[in-house]
Amino acid sequence: MWNRMQTFSVGSVFRTLMVTCTLLVSLRLPAEDGHRLWLRYDRIDDAALLAQYRNAVAAVVFPTPSPTLLVARNELLDDLESLLSKKLTSQTSLADNCLLAGTPSTSPIIAKLLSSQYPGLAGDGYLLHTQQTEGKHLLIIAAHSDIGVLYGVFAFLRLLQTHQPIQNLSVSSSPLTQHRILDHWDNLNRTVERGYAGASIWNWHLLPGYIDQRYIDYARANASIGVNGTVVTNVNANSLVLTPLYLQKVRALADVFRPYGIRVYLTAKFSAPVDIGGLKTADPLDPAVQQWWKDKCNEIYSLIPDFGGFLVKANSEGQPGPQTYGRTHTDGANMFADALAPHGGIVMWRAFVYDARPAATSSTSAHDMAAPDRFKQAYAEFTPFDGKFKPNVLIQVKNGPIDFQPREPFSPLFGAMSRTPLMMEFQLTQEYLGQGTHLVYEAPLFKEVLDADTYANGKGSTVARVIDGSAYHFPMRDPAQDVRLSSPLTGMAGVSNIGNERNWTNHPFGQANWYAFGRLAWDHTLSAREIADEWIRQTFSNDAAAVSTIEKIMMASREAIVNYMTPLGLHHIMGYNHHFGPGPWLDNASRADWNPVYYHRADAYGIGFDRTPAGSNALAQYQPQVRQQWLDSNTCDEKFLLWFHHVSWSHKMKDGQIFWNELCNRYQSGVDTVKWMQRQWQSLTSLIDKERFSQVSMFLGIQEKEAEWWRNACILYFQTFSRMPIPAGGGGPDQTLEYYKSLRFPYAPGTGGSL
Amino acid sequence: MWNRMQTFSVGSVFRTLMVTCTLLVSLRLPAEDGHRLWLRYDRIDDAALLAQYRNAVAAVVFPTPSPTLLVARNELLDDLESLLSKKLTSQTSLADNCLLAGTPSTSPIIAKLLSSQYPGLAGDGYLLHTQQTEGKHLLIIAAHSDIGVLYGVFAFLRLLQTHQPIQNLSVSSSPLTQHRILDHWDNLNRTVERGYAGASIWNWHLLPGYIDQRYIDYARANASIGVNGTVVTNVNANSLVLTPLYLQKVRALADVFRPYGIRVYLTAKFSAPVDIGGLKTADPLDPAVQQWWKDKCNEIYSLIPDFGGFLVKANSEGQPGPQTYGRTHTDGANMFADALAPHGGIVMWRAFVYDARPAATSSTSAHDMAAPDRFKQAYAEFTPFDGKFKPNVLIQVKNGPIDFQPREPFSPLFGAMSRTPLMMEFQLTQEYLGQGTHLVYEAPLFKEVLDADTYANGKGSTVARVIDGSAYHFPMRDPAQDVRLSSPLTGMAGVSNIGNERNWTNHPFGQANWYAFGRLAWDHTLSAREIADEWIRQTFSNDAAAVSTIEKIMMASREAIVNYMTPLGLHHIMGYNHHFGPGPWLDNASRADWNPVYYHRADAYGIGFDRTPAGSNALAQYQPQVRQQWLDSNTCDEKFLLWFHHVSWSHKMKDGQIFWNELCNRYQSGVDTVKWMQRQWQSLTSLIDKERFSQVSMFLGIQEKEAEWWRNACILYFQTFSRMPIPAGGGGPDQTLEYYKSLRFPYAPGTGGSL
Repeated sequence: MWNRMQTFSVGSVFRTLMVTCTLLVSLRLPAEDGHRLWLRYDRIDDAALLAQYRNAVAAVVFPTPSPTLLVARNELLDDLESLLSKKLTSQTSLADNCLLAGTPSTSPIIAKLLSSQYPGLAGDGYLLHTQQTEGKHLLIIAAHSDIGVLYGVFAFLRLLQTHQPIQNLSVSSSPLTQHRILDHWDNLNRTVERGYAGASIWNWHLLPGYIDQRYIDYARANASIGVNGTVVTNVNANSLVLTPLYLQKVRALADVFRPYGIRVYLTAKFSAPVDIGGLKTADPLDPAVQQWWKDKCNEIYSLIPDFGGFLVKANSEGQPGPQTYGRTHTDGANMFADALAPHGGIVMWRAFVYDARPAATSSTSAHDMAAPDRFKQAYAEFTPFDGKFKPNVLIQVKNGPIDFQPREPFSPLFGAMSRTPLMMEFQLTQEYLGQGTHLVYEAPLFKEVLDADTYANGKGSTVARVIDGSAYHFPMRDPAQDVRLSSPLTGMAGVSNIGNERNWTNHPFGQANWYAFGRLAWDHTLSAREIADEWIRQTFSNDAAAVSTIEKIMMASREAIVNYMTPLGLHHIMGYNHHFGPGPWLDNASRADWNPVYYHRADAYGIGFDRTPAGSNALAQYQPQVRQQWLDSNTCDEKFLLWFHHVSWSHKMKDGQIFWNELCNRYQSGVDTVKWMQRQWQSLTSLIDKERFSQVSMFLGIQEKEAEWWRNACILYFQTFSRMPIPAGGGGPDQTLEYYKSLRFPYAPGTGGSL
Repeated sequence: MWNRMQTFSVGSVFRTLMVTCTLLVSLRLPAEDGHRLWLRYDRIDDAALLAQYRNAVAAVVFPTPSPTLLVARNELLDDLESLLSKKLTSQTSLADNCLLAGTPSTSPIIAKLLSSQYPGLAGDGYLLHTQQTEGKHLLIIAAHSDIGVLYGVFAFLRLLQTHQPIQNLSVSSSPLTQHRILDHWDNLNRTVERGYAGASIWNWHLLPGYIDQRYIDYARANASIGVNGTVVTNVNANSLVLTPLYLQKVRALADVFRPYGIRVYLTAKFSAPVDIGGLKTADPLDPAVQQWWKDKCNEIYSLIPDFGGFLVKANSEGQPGPQTYGRTHTDGANMFADALAPHGGIVMWRAFVYDARPAATSSTSAHDMAAPDRFKQAYAEFTPFDGKFKPNVLIQVKNGPIDFQPREPFSPLFGAMSRTPLMMEFQLTQEYLGQGTHLVYEAPLFKEVLDADTYANGKGSTVARVIDGSAYHFPMRDPAQDVRLSSPLTGMAGVSNIGNERNWTNHPFGQANWYAFGRLAWDHTLSAREIADEWIRQTFSNDAAAVSTIEKIMMASREAIVNYMTPLGLHHIMGYNHHFGPGPWLDNASRADWNPVYYHRADAYGIGFDRTPAGSNALAQYQPQVRQQWLDSNTCDEKFLLWFHHVSWSHKMKDGQIFWNELCNRYQSGVDTVKWMQRQWQSLTSLIDKERFSQVSMFLGIQEKEAEWWRNACILYFQTFSRMPIPAGGGGPDQTLEYYKSLRFPYAPGTGGSL
């Protein structure tokens, strides 16, 4: 059983008392419905450790002159009460074994500590520090800013929840990116694009009058992992959110989030001046349009003084943008930047653009395999403007060049924009990663990209160091004013996987991706394994067997999905629109680059997209050292093989197999890993609470079926080209290719019309 | 504080122990997020009572030879453990103060008790009975059927949770209607028509692989109030649910619900044979169509042996039906009846029909105030077929003749179909009753209709007695076979207000309407107040002040909304489509009878719909005694006045006021009651948990604003006709009529596209 009896090495009366209490407590334990996320703070179930923690925190001194400090103190006291079964209140004078929390302005001891011992601590960073002062043992949680103290409180609580020692602390931590933001692709009608966890948590209709408790829980959860911004509306934007009626609703959310250090951002629809402003144009060079946005920003900031700014998807997938008026991305982004700058707001301008021209007039017609390579478009559109964006503009770049596939090489933009702050966009919601039901821990994917070397400024210019600004040893310039800025903007965005299901993400392991995003946005040097470890301990258990088993499952999961969906560099071969399930045969979309056949290019000779100089030459967009890694199909890292090469079915792989056999084996290996994950999970029956154990078991059952579906459908389809037998051991397809092609899912979720 | 300390009149060691335990328990009490509904089963907080209950249940004997009995036993033991902080297991031999549960086939004692002392107990009824047997005090929960035992268990637990004595029990209770059904207007894409609590709880995409814990919680909650059926799909139906892919999903739900005695029903789209069957017609007299439905039923029953049957909305609001093929309601309903009869399934055929002809070809054009009175159509269409439906058909009739308005006279069909079983359709979801945010306890509305006398078979033929069959002292006939049936079908349906929000209904008081529906479907003789009392005690508190205050709020709430929305018989004056907010001025829908102006008919003379012989003469559809009550505008019950009369603005009311002043005062009185409800609720600060207290406070704030909006908009609009001043004390409108007319709510929930 999960809630096992504890034994105590103390007197028998106390033991009886505690056993009785534990029994009673177990009667009243809430169902583990997952709503509490990693913030469970259940009583420490290791008696020795509990005693040690109780001794270490005998008193608390925590002045609260601001709403954020008040939130931080309440969080600390409530959670300590829960973790230690011990009620503490904040007192005014120091005592032995006292926890002292605050900023230099609330405590001279902290002021002295920061200036003397931690002079390098940055703005919102925190420290956890133990020292003797006037004969008293003090445990200090400190920061320069109020929000830094809240981050410190959560870091301290994390130590307790993960059973770490707290006797001798000297920990300091500062965020490596400034803007750590969740992007919600949530519509005003509460549908969520690519959402797999029910309706949007934003109940627009009931705002501002009704503040759902979930808003507060959301703010708290995000603050606990350092997230400090939320874009509450879909990038496929709706101008209505900029009308007074809705701005009152946005304001109510901002008021809830403010004490937790979370700023609200909105998506700005480029055509808003026409849609809701009564103007005839949205041309960014039209003075009336510029004035309209300035007025709109003044209006917003009068309601929300700490409004974060705008996220803009322009000239992409049907969204209007500056090109609609013959203008450039800089014209568009800088117009917003000017309107926001007086208020300290920023513009996040998305680089996810492809062929803004309507399909009908485009050369990218449905069956044109020579259509321009979408891989290349963001680079082509943005590099000419490097250095030309205003200083409060971030270009938000998806991790790969296409669209959040199970595996992509890093976007070449990361190696090509030395004078423009680039913001990472990861997708937490699993649009292409098994959607609502597959257990896929995404931190290994995030890390693979962050740790990739762009060679943008010599060896060691990893994507992470491009993002955090450290790859370039110069401050970025404001090209308009030619003023040197002290530091460039930095940021990381994660497309949210949150909905209104009871446990936020529906799949309990979806929570891990939200968690990992926040932790990496704060500190990209953390390893995927470290993050998994602390998430598991907080979310499930500190039991060694549970931690190690779940960690193994999580660490294997991403490679598993690559294998059963898109091994060896395959990409974009899923179903149309809903993107659910395999669809490698699909070839009749209105644009060539919406068709799976455009991407895999299977034919009698072989398979893969030739992006060498003999093909689209997308490789030319990378720095020479990177290009060199991938240029030759015989030396190219095989995980990216079909991203860059059209190889023959008999291509010799590094392990000596021919490509076709390797492909089949990879598919099988993905399925096998899912079966292994199931067995591993089943070994945890006695260590995980019933509700979540059963939930994950059911999801793994679905994942197994769908992994086999992917394997079967893809191998049968590709076999029509390779005309080679499926190697032994693959547990062959039990249906025909025609069967797989016939499947239809009109109400698959995440498409805007379905939940 | 809600969780107050208990004191115990026992020794100090025990007291210390318990106080410590209570403290620990209070630390771990789950947040009152409302998910537990009325099934909270928190520890009895009255020490004397707790001791008494503990004594009374010293042992349990509960054999479980069936899944339903197993569910019943686990429910009993789990909840007793919670209520009494005392772990019990089921034993095999009787002891003193033993709780014995079961059926005649599991216990000879029960067999004897039922035959000797309770010979009249009907099928699924239960009894709670105490007796001495062989010197032992026994507390017996018994029934003829397994599901009756589960009902008995919940009834017993209700006694404990509402702090009733259990020493001397002799309670028996049998359901007064057979089919007690929730109708879900839930679409396959998880939107909910007229849903105000998030997405559908049915996650079709993840079925059958993923069984949401909510499905089990749902079944349990429904069983606890006697609901025994669920129509899981919208009456505006989708044929896809009848395809094999979806039937597997439906089967999975049925498997979950079966042990809880809940049958699954589906809505049948009349055009399904064409939509998914490949036929050219859905003509009910076409043998191929009949065969298609027979085959479909065979297929369904092979998967779901206890499938309940179909609910059909035919030839209404665009739905296809038999009239589409020149056939009648009997032709349509009896076709389904024949297909279902061999399997024991039933047809619920909705009487909510109006003008099936398309608007363009209809006489009901937009501005035709002489268009046929929609009030009359159900009667006109159905009474000619009285006695002609197959015995497994129920005609499902909405409580009133129009559409779930805050107040309607009972539908004249209830007094006019002596040879056809009629099923009541109530709407729990508050489409016209303040939607997601107004506190409106609907039991008084339900009771007003159920207790209304139809005079169908002489005085005392209340709607309730028509519904339960007792108004007619004859068994209904099967007209086809001329076989007398032992008893007619009986049933009551409630259109569900359930969604996937954490607390099911979003508004905590929405739960009361679900609860009251189940209780009244079981026993329509219960009073609204009794039901409120037991719901409050289970949901909030047994504290006398809390119970009495909340009860007062609930009992006042329905009359309040009638007053601030549609006093004195006004009806159907809300906004188009979303039905949110006032729209008495609306006059440009494509059909006259979708326009508020068609219903209120305000003009310089007066206001109201003349349904006397001088007008549409809808009154003729009632029995003479009923007609007589409402025929004269001077004697007509004023709450129905404008339903039947066009009265002048100066019409003299019974209290001596002129109509205009009375109208204004009623609007004001509705607003005043909401303000009073707020004050009452505020007095409960210390008696209600923080989360729900604050939730309800916020909703009451919205309700107050919206009540004022209704008052202001309606009075300003009607004043353009009356040209009379608003009487003093009304706290005049603070905006112009033009302002109210200008308001737009494109994303108001419940319309199918918005949540």
